Amino acid sequence: MTSLLTAEIAEQPDVLARMLDAQLPRLAEWRTALRAGEIDGLLLVARGSSDNAARYAQYLWSLRTGLPVALATPSLHTVYGGKLNLRGKAVVALSQSGASPDVVAVLAAAREQGVPALAITNAPGSPLAEVATDVLDLAVGEERSVAATKTYTASVLAVALLGVALGDPAEEPGYVADLRGVPAAVAAAVELTTGVDQAAEVLTGPRRGVVVGRGLNLGTAHEAALKLTELTGSLMAPYSPADLMHGPVAALGPEVPVLTFAPDEPASASVLDLALEADRRGSPVLVVGPEHVVGGVRGTRVLLPAASATAAWLTPLTSVVPAQLLAQRVAEARGVDVDHPGGLTKVTRTT
Amino acid sequence: MTSLLTAEIAEQPDVLARMLDAQLPRLAEWRTALRAGEIDGLLLVARGSSDNAARYAQYLWSLRTGLPVALATPSLHTVYGGKLNLRGKAVVALSQSGASPDVVAVLAAAREQGVPALAITNAPGSPLAEVATDVLDLAVGEERSVAATKTYTASVLAVALLGVALGDPAEEPGYVADLRGVPAAVAAAVELTTGVDQAAEVLTGPRRGVVVGRGLNLGTAHEAALKLTELTGSLMAPYSPADLMHGPVAALGPEVPVLTFAPDEPASASVLDLALEADRRGSPVLVVGPEHVVGGVRGTRVLLPAASATAAWLTPLTSVVPAQLLAQRVAEARGVDVDHPGGLTKVTRTT
Repeated sequence: MTSLLTAEIAEQPDVLARMLDAQLPRLAEWRTALRAGEIDGLLLVARGSSDNAARYAQYLWSLRTGLPVALATPSLHTVYGGKLNLRGKAVVALSQSGASPDVVAVLAAAREQGVPALAITNAPGSPLAEVATDVLDLAVGEERSVAATKTYTASVLAVALLGVALGDPAEEPGYVADLRGVPAAVAAAVELTTGVDQAAEVLTGPRRGVVVGRGLNLGTAHEAALKLTELTGSLMAPYSPADLMHGPVAALGPEVPVLTFAPDEPASASVLDLALEADRRGSPVLVVGPEHVVGGVRGTRVLLPAASATAAWLTPLTSVVPAQLLAQRVAEARGVDVDHPGGLTKVTRTT
Repeated sequence: MTSLLTAEIAEQPDVLARMLDAQLPRLAEWRTALRAGEIDGLLLVARGSSDNAARYAQYLWSLRTGLPVALATPSLHTVYGGKLNLRGKAVVALSQSGASPDVVAVLAAAREQGVPALAITNAPGSPLAEVATDVLDLAVGEERSVAATKTYTASVLAVALLGVALGDPAEEPGYVADLRGVPAAVAAAVELTTGVDQAAEVLTGPRRGVVVGRGLNLGTAHEAALKLTELTGSLMAPYSPADLMHGPVAALGPEVPVLTFAPDEPASASVLDLALEADRRGSPVLVVGPEHVVGGVRGTRVLLPAASATAAWLTPLTSVVPAQLLAQRVAEARGVDVDHPGGLTKVTRTT
């Protein structure tokens, strides 16, 4: 029997295509909702996988707007009773369930202050949607597997769309053309076979490892680490190359595989340097990327097919797919119930 | 022979006392340098241990000012050629060596835009100090062990001092009184013995584990994970309780110890809930905190002595000390050269 997880991974190209059809005509609406061009900064609030989509937003939206983009610290509100002065900011919350009280609390504070308070959610009737000034409905259908896959890529696509809405209108046509290529690129990534089995084998033995990505794909590394940890039971810690070099690199060695993400984008150069250093320290190195970027790397290569190529700024949508496939394969090899790993339930209500 | 690490851990109370003598008279100066009361947000830039002090700043400065505090993403500048509009912001860089080009690049951008660009560093002649508009010299003497200890607590104290400078002047006397108690409290923490040996024994077997802290002490969890990973070679991953519950909790079990920080501050309640959940999942639980907070927790208790009590907002200064002691003990038990773990050098130059 096919797992829900497998089905939901495979659904992603269709889900993303539907989302583009629904959302591309609404770019001007989002521009207005976020007061693009008038705000002086953005604040994101999210947990879990959504927080990894928010990491992507932190880079992309800063690049598109030149504005500082902060990730909120919900406990500031829920534990310490802090009150942020959000004048001039736009606040965006990401949560597939829209049910986590801490995320709701931050967005509610934004709305009370009369600043844009946008919810990106798969649950337009949720408490989060209720406190939002505007709702971007992911509309990907119910996600039944505990581990987020289609809601993650849909959240990343929502972030990409809002990046266009927040940016220079003159650049919109080019970016929209980039976006239209996403479903086919993700479909090619989902069909990926080259290297996945070998990489899954490398990851099935050890119970700990490191995941490395940078810049636009730092969120990809965090999401890969989360997916692998949640689904396989291995403890996988995510780092940027710089943060890994500032100490944790000392823990590398033959029992610590290093999974690296090197799509065709500028930040991958330092990820490849790190892969070399990991190899030097004896770690089994795995590298995800297209052949022309990762072809020369020593280690196990998971090759993204040519048909999965996208604009550099959209590589987080394709790069994460091999991580989903790897987590699924390793989990299955270990006999995990991939739809309910660790006895978890779908909605996590943290405060 | 005593290691440099041991000596530098022991030096901390004196180092912090000297720093208070030097910096408390300068609060008004820092207030002016950061344009407190005029700015509409703060941006921090740091790597490694300094980044963990920056996490503390994100909570504390938001609480004191009500302003959003963002952690910078250096690759935005160094990889993507991004330009942030920093109007109205103050930018603070933390780096003991002041030598990392990525951190220098962000501070240089701030100075060029004419906004406050403060360097917190132990190297007043460094490239970072050179581009800064103002320099807060940690002046803790050379740190010779690769793993940061006294420069970490000094950076945390600098963050605490600037939190006072940024806040309401009417509240200054109370906060200054709190600060004056820090050296004695840290001295008591350094003398800590209750439970350290037992906890070190629990951590010496497994090669992976999880570290949990929240709010003001989320940075403490990150710093503890960094110190343990760097010094002992175990892979220790830091989480807030909420982020752990959103998936990675599935990886807990008898081979995955969970080190939790529960000092006497409001965020510790949810850390103790998490300790209970970890125990339920069979993980060996270690908890660091004063007896009246952690006395009832199942697991190995590292008891912070009564004399190490501080105001809640200063608990990151005392809570991190047991982590330093634990990392040192576990590393020594494993025969690591604690002053040069993993063949690392003191200054990491990332770009």
